[in-house]
Amino acid sequence: MAASATIPKRIYIGTFVHSTSLTDLDICESGAIGVNENGVIEFVDRETSSITDLKSKHSSYEDAQIVIPTNKNAFFFPGFIDTHTHAPQHPNTGLFGKTTLLSWLETYTFPMEASLSSLDKARTVYSNFVSRTLSHGTTTAAYYATVHVPATNLLADICLKRGQRALVGRVCMNTMSPEYYRDASVEDAVRDSKASIDHIRLIDPKGEIVQPIITPRFAPSCTTEALSALGALHRDTDAHIQTHISENKGEIELVKELFPHSKNYADVYDTAGLLTPKTILAHCVHLTPEERKVILARESKISHCPASNTAITSGCAPIRSLLAEGHTIGLGTDVSGGFSPSILENCRQAIWVSRHLAMSEGDNVKLSTNEALFLATRGGAEVIGLQDKVGGFEVGKEWDAQMIDLGEVPGSDAEEAFERDFSDGPCDVFGWESWQEKVEKWVYSGDDRNTVAVWVRGRLVHKHKRFSTSAMIN
Amino acid sequence: MAASATIPKRIYIGTFVHSTSLTDLDICESGAIGVNENGVIEFVDRETSSITDLKSKHSSYEDAQIVIPTNKNAFFFPGFIDTHTHAPQHPNTGLFGKTTLLSWLETYTFPMEASLSSLDKARTVYSNFVSRTLSHGTTTAAYYATVHVPATNLLADICLKRGQRALVGRVCMNTMSPEYYRDASVEDAVRDSKASIDHIRLIDPKGEIVQPIITPRFAPSCTTEALSALGALHRDTDAHIQTHISENKGEIELVKELFPHSKNYADVYDTAGLLTPKTILAHCVHLTPEERKVILARESKISHCPASNTAITSGCAPIRSLLAEGHTIGLGTDVSGGFSPSILENCRQAIWVSRHLAMSEGDNVKLSTNEALFLATRGGAEVIGLQDKVGGFEVGKEWDAQMIDLGEVPGSDAEEAFERDFSDGPCDVFGWESWQEKVEKWVYSGDDRNTVAVWVRGRLVHKHKRFSTSAMIN
Repeated sequence: MAASATIPKRIYIGTFVHSTSLTDLDICESGAIGVNENGVIEFVDRETSSITDLKSKHSSYEDAQIVIPTNKNAFFFPGFIDTHTHAPQHPNTGLFGKTTLLSWLETYTFPMEASLSSLDKARTVYSNFVSRTLSHGTTTAAYYATVHVPATNLLADICLKRGQRALVGRVCMNTMSPEYYRDASVEDAVRDSKASIDHIRLIDPKGEIVQPIITPRFAPSCTTEALSALGALHRDTDAHIQTHISENKGEIELVKELFPHSKNYADVYDTAGLLTPKTILAHCVHLTPEERKVILARESKISHCPASNTAITSGCAPIRSLLAEGHTIGLGTDVSGGFSPSILENCRQAIWVSRHLAMSEGDNVKLSTNEALFLATRGGAEVIGLQDKVGGFEVGKEWDAQMIDLGEVPGSDAEEAFERDFSDGPCDVFGWESWQEKVEKWVYSGDDRNTVAVWVRGRLVHKHKRFSTSAMIN
Repeated sequence: MAASATIPKRIYIGTFVHSTSLTDLDICESGAIGVNENGVIEFVDRETSSITDLKSKHSSYEDAQIVIPTNKNAFFFPGFIDTHTHAPQHPNTGLFGKTTLLSWLETYTFPMEASLSSLDKARTVYSNFVSRTLSHGTTTAAYYATVHVPATNLLADICLKRGQRALVGRVCMNTMSPEYYRDASVEDAVRDSKASIDHIRLIDPKGEIVQPIITPRFAPSCTTEALSALGALHRDTDAHIQTHISENKGEIELVKELFPHSKNYADVYDTAGLLTPKTILAHCVHLTPEERKVILARESKISHCPASNTAITSGCAPIRSLLAEGHTIGLGTDVSGGFSPSILENCRQAIWVSRHLAMSEGDNVKLSTNEALFLATRGGAEVIGLQDKVGGFEVGKEWDAQMIDLGEVPGSDAEEAFERDFSDGPCDVFGWESWQEKVEKWVYSGDDRNTVAVWVRGRLVHKHKRFSTSAMIN
């Protein structure tokens, strides 16, 4: 499963669903997509008659493998993009009690992250997490790792081996953190960050699967000097940047105290040269109008983490108005502030957060199903700088995709139903639904059981046992 | 699987978890519970040494069947109680778009419910829904059916056959509903409701599994005369009552217009004799202090439906203050206003709703994990009038329970992990967690894959294929 292994040309035949704009979902019921040995889409046919016709029309695909869902309630969808998550916090998923951000860091997060100084533990945690996120259809993720260079590099190695696209960031934090878990100095922070960047660029020189990302944890964890040094590291290396901003009101007050000479939270990063077009800003819940302006002007990107913002009571990010201003936004699971590694769950949570906002601000702030799916795919691709490669099905893009199989409700024989264990997943498709309704059922009730196969750059990186080999012909 | 079939005496051995108060969760790590041929708990031992010792201590259990989880991360938990759901809306799960209550009824709900005049369709929908809810560990449900007597009776038949405890209600609605779907007159409404009550009392004379429930849809669907006639029907039959109240602001305005002589929404029901200790009131999102007082005085019960209230933007029910006032509250899935038939999902949603309230009202309104689990079990039992029979594990109660199996994260071998399809479910237990943490992981990440077996009155009513026969010895 090395990233460089050769893959056969394939033609994927069936129903394709992808976003074509924030509000429009394109459902092509009977299409065919040809993907070459490099995982690049070479043709998209919207009307398919027969395999014979297809192969004669696309002569270089005469010997191509054919992939056809065996179930009629199945479709291809772009892989999900998780623009913000913390791989080392995976074992804490679901553990947060009644804490909010700052108490949660002390109680749950720092002790767990610190324990990944053990490479054995890191291997167990990261292997499981990459498998887990792939099983949810996440083909690209922006990962926070820990301060440890070896464990961070291991996460990059695992992503490369499994074939999951990733930005992998060694975390920088040189203040306001426990003695047992911090960078000893600015020099250490920069040197270790550089070491991890070098490793990742060594194992994947073109950044085809894994890329490094400079990761100041968040302003309160870094001194002004550390932030400036990381800004300089960005200018030197042109690596991506990720951090948190304006998640929680207590955190914002803390930033005011810690950086009395800064105009606001965003200004702390801007002054350090950390607001760039390659910067991913997680949360953005309570930004002021001035901060929103500077983020927009710098072309920095926003990762909306609705499950996390709800679980640890951070607030409701105003996504409708951020979109209206022209911000670029994707979704983040923010494990383990977020309680789920699934972007599909976060599509739902984004919709719920928008409804909670709508309770006070009115119906126009509600996000639709289509809008949530856009954020989960195209939006995320723009946030991560991969909009020319992934997020939708067009010629020239790479085949990062999932096959969704919704299953079907059987007949009404009671004894048969008693034996059902619903291993075909949580969706109930009776057969009379339109395709738009089938997609809605997936979004509101689906889970990883419905993601029966996942590809990145044309390579099969996850399959559920429901993905039968008969779905792959020849 | 008929309700009257004989079951063997059984001893359930292992970890038991149940609520002992609103805030306290009792985790007995190594217990044993003896259940007799009638499904009644005869002993609860909190310290178990060996099966031999157990059988010698409880001599009448010498030949008992032994049920032991094969996995160490497994435990027994009381069955969930769904205090409000609409079985005929099951096929619409996930379909609501951006509607709110009144537009949602017209667009999605009434056409689907009306179509269940077809008994064939009703059989398909109801068989699947009862199987589906059982698979989520729901051992008791309060069901709205439709206006149709034959389909309502069929739902009761299916619940009885499958062994799911249920209150089954034929829906009454004689105004403000489509011409194609309403009671033609008050007399028709009462006659048909009575017919359904009679059928249910005929098939289960003692109401051991299924009981009837009088079901005025909600005030806007019923004339004053119809409501009063249903109040009289309650006095004649002593049947339970269920209806909706104060879900949505538009609905409340509508009730004001339709019932100009009533003091408020609750008064409409009170005047009709429908606020009784056997009344279940779904939603209660926007009740006034006066309404809360009268509901408390009448000892009527509250079904909190958080997923529904979020999905169709109804509002956040003030559960903390309702509890503080002494109201009796359970959870309801409210399918298909609610997007999930799972009470576990609604535990999470209740917690999220409380956090959204906390964003404006402060941390003290947050519900804890333990509180949500109480509402899902003991609270629901009180709402439905079954607090002496179900909701916890005490001698004299009946064995309504689910076996939860969380699985375990395997070693870190990458190839093995690649092949994982996570059929053991969505929880990631690494082995170092405390039992309280395992329960938290279940609540925040679990789903029906973790519910490997379900019993009602001692009868096995659902099993997942992960429930191996080796879990049941002898």
